[in-house]
Amino acid sequence: MKIVVLGGGRVGSAMARDLARDSQFEVTVVDASEEALRRLGASGLKTARADLSDPAEVRRAVQSHDLVVGAVPGFMGFDTLKAVLEADKDIVDISFFDEDPFLLDDLARERGRIALVDCGVAPGCSNLFLGRMAAELDRIDSFVCYVGGLPAVRQWPFEFKAVFSPIDVIEEYTRPARFKRHGQPVTLPALSEVEPVDFPGVGTLEAFNTDGLRTLLRTIEAPSMVEKTLRYPGHADRMRMLRETGFFGTEPIEAGAVRVRPRDVTAKLLFSSWQLGPGEEDFTALRIVIEGEKDGRPVRRAWDLLDRFDRETETTSMARTTGYTCTSIVRLVAAGLYKHKGISPPEYVGRDAEAYAFVLRHLAERGVVFREV
Amino acid sequence: MKIVVLGGGRVGSAMARDLARDSQFEVTVVDASEEALRRLGASGLKTARADLSDPAEVRRAVQSHDLVVGAVPGFMGFDTLKAVLEADKDIVDISFFDEDPFLLDDLARERGRIALVDCGVAPGCSNLFLGRMAAELDRIDSFVCYVGGLPAVRQWPFEFKAVFSPIDVIEEYTRPARFKRHGQPVTLPALSEVEPVDFPGVGTLEAFNTDGLRTLLRTIEAPSMVEKTLRYPGHADRMRMLRETGFFGTEPIEAGAVRVRPRDVTAKLLFSSWQLGPGEEDFTALRIVIEGEKDGRPVRRAWDLLDRFDRETETTSMARTTGYTCTSIVRLVAAGLYKHKGISPPEYVGRDAEAYAFVLRHLAERGVVFREV
Repeated sequence: MKIVVLGGGRVGSAMARDLARDSQFEVTVVDASEEALRRLGASGLKTARADLSDPAEVRRAVQSHDLVVGAVPGFMGFDTLKAVLEADKDIVDISFFDEDPFLLDDLARERGRIALVDCGVAPGCSNLFLGRMAAELDRIDSFVCYVGGLPAVRQWPFEFKAVFSPIDVIEEYTRPARFKRHGQPVTLPALSEVEPVDFPGVGTLEAFNTDGLRTLLRTIEAPSMVEKTLRYPGHADRMRMLRETGFFGTEPIEAGAVRVRPRDVTAKLLFSSWQLGPGEEDFTALRIVIEGEKDGRPVRRAWDLLDRFDRETETTSMARTTGYTCTSIVRLVAAGLYKHKGISPPEYVGRDAEAYAFVLRHLAERGVVFREV
Repeated sequence: MKIVVLGGGRVGSAMARDLARDSQFEVTVVDASEEALRRLGASGLKTARADLSDPAEVRRAVQSHDLVVGAVPGFMGFDTLKAVLEADKDIVDISFFDEDPFLLDDLARERGRIALVDCGVAPGCSNLFLGRMAAELDRIDSFVCYVGGLPAVRQWPFEFKAVFSPIDVIEEYTRPARFKRHGQPVTLPALSEVEPVDFPGVGTLEAFNTDGLRTLLRTIEAPSMVEKTLRYPGHADRMRMLRETGFFGTEPIEAGAVRVRPRDVTAKLLFSSWQLGPGEEDFTALRIVIEGEKDGRPVRRAWDLLDRFDRETETTSMARTTGYTCTSIVRLVAAGLYKHKGISPPEYVGRDAEAYAFVLRHLAERGVVFREV
């Protein structure tokens, strides 16, 4: 089976390497950057160059393949997904675009294509767990997800490294966060309601509101749903300080002799500060708590994931947890074990007990283990 | 006696009002801003317009006056002082320029002019106290000065309002701080060595290194001299975060489609955040500790100043404490009680017991009272 991975970044390349180890797959990675292609080629991967910001190039790039893995930056994700569906290809996507993926549901159905989106760790595994519980229980009362990707070494002042694009992190810190409370939709500022969270093996972190529920707000009936981001304590206050002082502003201001968007300056400065250097290790912390009812009895189930940087392959934990979730779903689709046509978020995969077990087994084989607590 | 005040800002206008209450003085305030002149005129002051960034205009502006008060922004201070001396006028200055004032000592002596510089609260009163003690004691062992101008209301995130130009505050937070320790000159980064300081009537503040000793490093022999800035706790960390991330940088960076100095963006954003609004009250906290020896016995003397916003005249405490120190020295010179030709920092005034008492009495009459502790 011929698989094409669109985007050869940290996560895309980890996924390509994982899939290429499987003799049934012939894997090609597509990227616009010659430097990325050289790096990927050096690790033995087959590569092709294409400007994926051009839908026509996306359609050409996927044409001769059986299955597509989408791993482009968030802002390009929606258009790339659309182009792939227009090219009549199945896709498993991890690009976390802002747009509502269900806007492409009709297109995917018309073309009879499988389009799995948000196939990372959270969103991703979190959706998988909730999808499973929604199928097993009679009623879901509450869903809580805490998730963070953090550097192993805490360094003043941010104690943070961007395991994905800093501009996406700033976006996460500015976009209002949507939840369900007492059955009602609620919107709160990002970085709000900071609370301490003790995480075994890590110590005390802080959790704050971000807009991470995405498709779950539409697909799952539950009176209470919340997603919070985990950071080392103090991070949210620094980010709020920058945001409230205007450093994340997108309206140009006069500075010196020019007009400039403060966010562009801030992203440039934070990029240097937040870059994960060579050999710098990260970890992923994820906690999921689901409460509901089964046969008249209350049920509470909770899982912790603490995944660390892989020193042997120098693979970041963020690439491992998001990427291997995605490649497990790629294998699920490749094996013909997931057949739903149209847009599917991972909670749809969780509905099926076998598919759910398949994904978790695949992750466990790669050392990504959810511990029930 | 005809007195001209160069600069009609917060401090300049408070000084002009103070001097104008004295029937022996005919006071004119000079500023480039029509709006400032309108405001000053409305309060009954005589005004004149001049662009004080042009030395020729400075010389013209002071020509028909007997004594000059310098209250221009720091970056214009040195050139303004030079122009005043070239115009053969005596000056009492409060503009706190970066340059070494003694570079103008020869000029002032040649012209036979009195030029008192750094006539604020600290530098200013702090120099006065140390000058007095240096004259009274056989030896100075140590000089410590803690000083801060702060808003009465603490507001997240900075708990700070710039009672002078924000760009000067950023400069204060970036310029290396020079001290004397164990008899040796020492240079440390600004914002370093943060320590808690309990200040009666205020609570716990923090003190950190800034470059404030200025002329004292040259004029006073003491093995240990330190000046620290007072802020509400946490301020230094936020400022260090901005500085170390590059937000105070003066090298242009690429941001969006333009090249911009991060400091210009930061100053613009902080200016909105740091502006003391109408009716917002400030206070000034100053602590001086001087140790030395007299007749073989150790001597330790310490003074606290806690001065608050004047609600009746809506005069900021910073304008009161710096401005009234300056006007007291203006009166000293006008009364013929200070005669040294050349550049004089306030420690020279402190050498003379009568002049020292004159200044403190004048301040006390205006409610600015140093309490010996």
